[in-house]
Amino acid sequence: MRILILGGDGYLGWPTAMRFSSRGHEVHVIDNYLRREAHREAGSDSLTPIATGLPERVAAWKELTGNDIGYTEGDLTDWDVTEALFRDVRPEAVVHYGEIPSAPYSMKDRNHAVFTQTNNVVNTLNVIYAIRDIVPDCHLVKLGTMGEYGTPNIDIEEGYIEINHNGRSDYLPFPKVPGSMYHLSKVHDSHNIHFACRVWGLRATDLNQGVVYGIQTDETVLDDRLMTRFDYDDVFGTALNRFCLQAVIGHPLTVYGKGGQTRGYLNIVDTLQCIELAVEHPAERGEMRVFNQFTESFSILDLAQHVQKAGAEVGIDVEITSIDNPRFELEEHYYNPVHTKLLDLGLKPHLLSDTLIESMFSTMERFKDRVVADHILPRDRWQPADEGD
Amino acid sequence: MRILILGGDGYLGWPTAMRFSSRGHEVHVIDNYLRREAHREAGSDSLTPIATGLPERVAAWKELTGNDIGYTEGDLTDWDVTEALFRDVRPEAVVHYGEIPSAPYSMKDRNHAVFTQTNNVVNTLNVIYAIRDIVPDCHLVKLGTMGEYGTPNIDIEEGYIEINHNGRSDYLPFPKVPGSMYHLSKVHDSHNIHFACRVWGLRATDLNQGVVYGIQTDETVLDDRLMTRFDYDDVFGTALNRFCLQAVIGHPLTVYGKGGQTRGYLNIVDTLQCIELAVEHPAERGEMRVFNQFTESFSILDLAQHVQKAGAEVGIDVEITSIDNPRFELEEHYYNPVHTKLLDLGLKPHLLSDTLIESMFSTMERFKDRVVADHILPRDRWQPADEGD
Repeated sequence: MRILILGGDGYLGWPTAMRFSSRGHEVHVIDNYLRREAHREAGSDSLTPIATGLPERVAAWKELTGNDIGYTEGDLTDWDVTEALFRDVRPEAVVHYGEIPSAPYSMKDRNHAVFTQTNNVVNTLNVIYAIRDIVPDCHLVKLGTMGEYGTPNIDIEEGYIEINHNGRSDYLPFPKVPGSMYHLSKVHDSHNIHFACRVWGLRATDLNQGVVYGIQTDETVLDDRLMTRFDYDDVFGTALNRFCLQAVIGHPLTVYGKGGQTRGYLNIVDTLQCIELAVEHPAERGEMRVFNQFTESFSILDLAQHVQKAGAEVGIDVEITSIDNPRFELEEHYYNPVHTKLLDLGLKPHLLSDTLIESMFSTMERFKDRVVADHILPRDRWQPADEGD
Repeated sequence: MRILILGGDGYLGWPTAMRFSSRGHEVHVIDNYLRREAHREAGSDSLTPIATGLPERVAAWKELTGNDIGYTEGDLTDWDVTEALFRDVRPEAVVHYGEIPSAPYSMKDRNHAVFTQTNNVVNTLNVIYAIRDIVPDCHLVKLGTMGEYGTPNIDIEEGYIEINHNGRSDYLPFPKVPGSMYHLSKVHDSHNIHFACRVWGLRATDLNQGVVYGIQTDETVLDDRLMTRFDYDDVFGTALNRFCLQAVIGHPLTVYGKGGQTRGYLNIVDTLQCIELAVEHPAERGEMRVFNQFTESFSILDLAQHVQKAGAEVGIDVEITSIDNPRFELEEHYYNPVHTKLLDLGLKPHLLSDTLIESMFSTMERFKDRVVADHILPRDRWQPADEGD
């Protein structure tokens, strides 16, 4: 199958490209290196010393496996780039990771909020127009986030909910109460893609993904030049990955507030499995299918305690500390999202285990002298009035 | 009160500015003349020969009433403009009409879709950041549209709905299934403003307005230089206004498809009343209040028959014709939106009457030699595959 990976230089994009390539698919990736650039600006970096860019990555992959991966260095918000890419590649499936993925980044200030929403909304609009006009049968597999839903007091369904009201009923999009300018951009995308499916007959799978953890996949371990990036900083790092790194460098685990914030999580190897399942079982024309993509729910405090326990087993003494929550979110709440559709397609979860955490520790050990320690604590606050505190 | 009107050169913006000024408020308007420019590009125009711009309008208003209205000619997507405006005016209420308001415009092509969403989302983001950082107590009165909801098979509530699900319940944003790239931009705005109220404690009223008709208000009739614009073309004209104009020039009324499409409507004088009620009774800090702003529901065919009947009374023979529907919408559907909150605040509706239609006829008669007849029929189709038909 001809598969186009948007954001193919990223934490998940690059491993996804290698996975599909190793399965014999014809893979093309595009990236504008926005994440690398944001790190350069901030003075932070990936823990893992990744290859310098797509040319080096693709060359190493070719050398090691004999497989070709096509690549484009370009920005999907530029229609000329998007149009040429779709005309050239004529993808049968598009996996869309090509967005700014960070809540703290989007909450830095007005400029970052506008940039995040414009970048994500415009590149996704360009993608749906390119599919409509160039490859209308192509299946769009779009990465959304569980954070689109927020934390409602009812069970979270997969994208839609049957609402019974005053004796009538309808099956409607699940209401969204997202928690940052970034999460809002994903909600905007979901509405735009839903429209494209309803009105133009496009086919799409919107994957509302939980928080991904892990550092290795079957392909990244083949050679250091194939490693994927690993962010542990306050802007691009996510909970479990950050905690493991903090444990390794002897930093107290930074639990925000009470730590009762509960979210869905999954291993990076399960992300790849989910993407494969979605691509192999495409949505119907006219359908925007929504899957909640995670395998387990944990509170932040649960996660910290898992890391503490795994640390004890390998002789690392891990301290847990509560810091003032920079975000605006409920710290104790109901959380019960449905996530059966990917299991129904055949997902075999790799659940969180001490062994996995310990294996992350040992990979991190290798690179711990690369850590920029002043990018561990959060700096971007959701409520600017609190900044003086 | 210091009131800032965004989009103050428009069909509703200019009459709103005069209304608040006549009531003794300190009024400032801003507009970037985007509508005038879009008409120039398309070769269409307002039926009414309006003043050349804000300087001429404001000068005429001053001459006739002695009241000052401040004005800025500028673009709210430019943060420097927005910031300077809010620092200068320090509004206590902002009435936000400053968006591209046309579904057909947004559906012309990718470029118009991207421009509509970027323009509307970015200028609204700028406005909420300006309020947050400069005048946090200011009340944002934002014009949304009933079209955000689409046509669900359940009663449409005012912005939020109590959902009971698996034995639990929550009061959540009403699910949105909008029908164009323009309507989507308003849904994006609603989510962004909801966030600003929840997280930053802003106060906002989101007015989901129906289709406005009418050509005169108490202030526009004072002098021809105070007239508001009146669009009857396929891009910016709306149903009843277009039908009245078609009747006057002897064009068959252009019902799209079966004509069972039902929407909420209101008289322009009731728009002004609703805006005044919202401004006089501000939302609480932290609250995004949503009002469904219309007074009556009609199907397209109902409206056409109203115009036909009013025509018969004044000796105009009005033909009704069904044309192929350029839009993608249900032509027969359930439609029962709640609209009690503005009535509770004191709205006294001016319902549609033959007299009103006849008075529109006579105003139009005056200007009918200005009509550009080749901008009556729709040109922009929602589904491009049908374009060759």
